Amino acid sequence: MNPADMTFAGFQKYISEKYESSDRARGTPKTFLWFIEEVGELATALNGEDRENLAEEFADVVAWLCTLANINDIDLAEAIAKKYLGEKRPEGAK
Amino acid sequence: MNPADMTFAGFQKYISEKYESSDRARGTPKTFLWFIEEVGELATALNGEDRENLAEEFADVVAWLCTLANINDIDLAEAIAKKYLGEKRPEGAK
Repeated sequence: MNPADMTFAGFQKYISEKYESSDRARGTPKTFLWFIEEVGELATALNGEDRENLAEEFADVVAWLCTLANINDIDLAEAIAKKYLGEKRPEGAK
Repeated sequence: MNPADMTFAGFQKYISEKYESSDRARGTPKTFLWFIEEVGELATALNGEDRENLAEEFADVVAWLCTLANINDIDLAEAIAKKYLGEKRPEGAK
């Protein structure tokens, strides 16, 4: 698949099919710890010079965010469309 | 647009066109502070009962992650495809 064609819905579903049962068993608080661990690794990578690692850490944060969304029954694409692409989207700042 | 069709590349570009010049002027460290503020708001929402707010906070985290990626010249879709959908993708755990 061309990465340019990758949808939020498709990747969120991929993460769901691969991990959601174990993610749900772990629960939101512990999963949030994993997510934050990846956010910390992203911070480290942003401070460094390893571009490949930086890209990986961005990917990991997205993956764990998808997991948090899955186990909380949030459709990321719908949430983004409603907040950023809908009628009440922010004009000046995010 | 149907949210199910929303691509990472398309939304990252949308955020770039709307905010990247001011985001680059702010720089990575200060932008990371904004990102973390949204992560904190996501934590608050995960602890609460307001489903609409929870969806918004997920969207905000994605938007600020796109901003961090933009100003660090990272293509999120490529990073995700390489880490999660490529030959060396994780099998057992994220």
